[in-house]
Amino acid sequence: MAIIVQKFGGTSVANPEKIKAVAERVMKLHRQGNKMVVVLSAMAGETNRFVDLAKQMQKIPDPREMDVLLSSGEQVTVSLFAMAVKAAGLDCVSLLGDQVKIKTDTMHTKARIKSIDTDRMCRYLDEGKIIVVAGFQGITEDNDITTLGRGGSDTTAVALAAALKADQCEIFTDVEGVYTTDPNVCPSARKIDRITYDEMLELASLGAKVLDIRSVGFAKRYKVPLHVRSTFTDTEGTWVVEEDKSMESMLVSGVTYNKNEARITISKVPDTPGTASRIFTPISDAGIIVDMIIQNTRASHLTDMTFTVPRTDYDKAMEIVEKIAGEIGAESVTGDQQIAKISIVGVGMRNHSGIATTMFHILARENINISMISTSEIKVSCVIDEKYTELAVRALHDAFNLEKENQPEEV
Amino acid sequence: MAIIVQKFGGTSVANPEKIKAVAERVMKLHRQGNKMVVVLSAMAGETNRFVDLAKQMQKIPDPREMDVLLSSGEQVTVSLFAMAVKAAGLDCVSLLGDQVKIKTDTMHTKARIKSIDTDRMCRYLDEGKIIVVAGFQGITEDNDITTLGRGGSDTTAVALAAALKADQCEIFTDVEGVYTTDPNVCPSARKIDRITYDEMLELASLGAKVLDIRSVGFAKRYKVPLHVRSTFTDTEGTWVVEEDKSMESMLVSGVTYNKNEARITISKVPDTPGTASRIFTPISDAGIIVDMIIQNTRASHLTDMTFTVPRTDYDKAMEIVEKIAGEIGAESVTGDQQIAKISIVGVGMRNHSGIATTMFHILARENINISMISTSEIKVSCVIDEKYTELAVRALHDAFNLEKENQPEEV
Repeated sequence: MAIIVQKFGGTSVANPEKIKAVAERVMKLHRQGNKMVVVLSAMAGETNRFVDLAKQMQKIPDPREMDVLLSSGEQVTVSLFAMAVKAAGLDCVSLLGDQVKIKTDTMHTKARIKSIDTDRMCRYLDEGKIIVVAGFQGITEDNDITTLGRGGSDTTAVALAAALKADQCEIFTDVEGVYTTDPNVCPSARKIDRITYDEMLELASLGAKVLDIRSVGFAKRYKVPLHVRSTFTDTEGTWVVEEDKSMESMLVSGVTYNKNEARITISKVPDTPGTASRIFTPISDAGIIVDMIIQNTRASHLTDMTFTVPRTDYDKAMEIVEKIAGEIGAESVTGDQQIAKISIVGVGMRNHSGIATTMFHILARENINISMISTSEIKVSCVIDEKYTELAVRALHDAFNLEKENQPEEV
Repeated sequence: MAIIVQKFGGTSVANPEKIKAVAERVMKLHRQGNKMVVVLSAMAGETNRFVDLAKQMQKIPDPREMDVLLSSGEQVTVSLFAMAVKAAGLDCVSLLGDQVKIKTDTMHTKARIKSIDTDRMCRYLDEGKIIVVAGFQGITEDNDITTLGRGGSDTTAVALAAALKADQCEIFTDVEGVYTTDPNVCPSARKIDRITYDEMLELASLGAKVLDIRSVGFAKRYKVPLHVRSTFTDTEGTWVVEEDKSMESMLVSGVTYNKNEARITISKVPDTPGTASRIFTPISDAGIIVDMIIQNTRASHLTDMTFTVPRTDYDKAMEIVEKIAGEIGAESVTGDQQIAKISIVGVGMRNHSGIATTMFHILARENINISMISTSEIKVSCVIDEKYTELAVRALHDAFNLEKENQPEEV
């Protein structure tokens, strides 16, 4: 008797008919003897409606109250889902964030899960009940509602799967799985059958929208086999799993891009110990996540510091940085919101040199200038001018032969 | 520094503009130095939308899940309200049923409040915060969401006022106050300035829709001065208060009607001890509230038992009663859903005889047959054929001179 966690996004539960279809799918697996835990998002469109309402009340809506508002959306879908299952004669119970005791930190609108209490869920599963959990939401120590930010329902699903030691966690979405790159940008993009947690982590953090990065992190840490698939077909999607030998033959698994970042540069910063800390502590305290950081040393103990932040946090970050720049005696602060980060990812890179060089070469051939570079064991990222994004993605996808299932050993 | 609880219904918070207007009203009193606690309903129309959605999922929606669904409506209005107040530069915090710890029994969709924890609210009030509480909802010992049934937000407001020992509790609605009868039925209906808790209890239980009966009961028990008034004007409404001498000069305060009940008669019941209990225990266990009960003794130890139940519970009640009728050897069960209960209410009745007789006389004069009669110290109710409702109301309102502020001592 397997424990299966299934997560369905907003387009999968957009109206009563679709909720019933999802219930049918879940009940089928329940009838086959599986213990089912379902995580739902709000109906597609609800979150936008709430954001619109909130903005009519307050220019920058209060984060605590925003979470109270947003979390009501999942409350609607889980209760309707439970009714649909009960109407079909099976037992089902809905649980909200506070009822599962999904404890988070207090960072409203992008909280992180600290713990989950499985007692109540295990009791219900033993009683043969299907459990439907409101995704995206948690609760602080003080019983305040929090939400987990973009893709939060994925995180809820994987965290539940980890806590319940589920046999698998299926993320249902409106695409067929994880692709070698965005099919809208590159027509030869191919669905990947199997991918490692590490590759998926890099892809997710680099802009692939199909899975939230925190959910992949959870899945990796607790070794939860993750299956990303379409709500609207029975086709297998992409399995995100632990690495095995066969995967290393793939030099590059995917090409990804991210247009949601902005660049900030502080010029001529006095290069003394503690400077980086003075710059980044207040940014981090404001809940802004800094991605790439590059520091170039100049002559006479001065340095230039460049980093990227989410584009939505750009104004707030600039305000903070301009204040600090004055305090630490930096010369100037400049920024650019029209950037894109292009990345290639693959576990095969570990054992092969020259992948980064190939990437730089291809971008140069297309006359695309690189303004920042960052690398890890299994990825290379370049920041370029936003307008070259699609061109760069297609050129790299072609150069690394990603349209083919089995790539040559070397390119 | 007074503590004031104000409750605004669905039409008062139907859209962002109206929510802002309500926030202005509350902030004005806050700026005058009062400690403000606001209770809100869901936006007008939301509850109907949810009921429609639920019925698409399950013919008779599961009560526990219905409460999860319905309670999301208040979550939306309280968070938007808090944002509106914060946008104006004052501090405000929204609290849901579980955050105020409004503990109820487990009777889903019509739960009763057992206790309220004021610690968190008092702390916030001392900090100068305006508190906005989601009306209509509570929480069971097991942390399941409950709702308090029709008019539940009134009950929330008065219960909070009682728990906080508030100086007054204002119920804002879309009418100007409590009327001598329904102005839609009787054009000479007059707004009442002051009315006693007991009269209001009778009026509310007899069908006056302006206030929920449980909220009046709470107000009476904890001596909370209740002010029923319009959201859309600054005019004083109706104060519901303790009785004083001047009130006794009014023989009748109001005429009310209720078309939401149905009659059930069990004929030729063996008249043995315990019969009434055998009939009414299972009805009560099903959560059905029986209103009037009349028993007529026949010859040869047989009796007829007639009672009324809410019309929405009629089918369920008939099913139960037919089963019991077979078990206890009654001859037959009949019912009628086309009834109305017409009542006159007034504390002055206590010291004057002949009020009931006058009522019977007036109904007879209009050729209206009375099928059941029930009386208390301060009211007389008659069940009549539903189609005569409006005629009966107007005739009684005229006969007792309710259009005049000061009635004659005798009619």
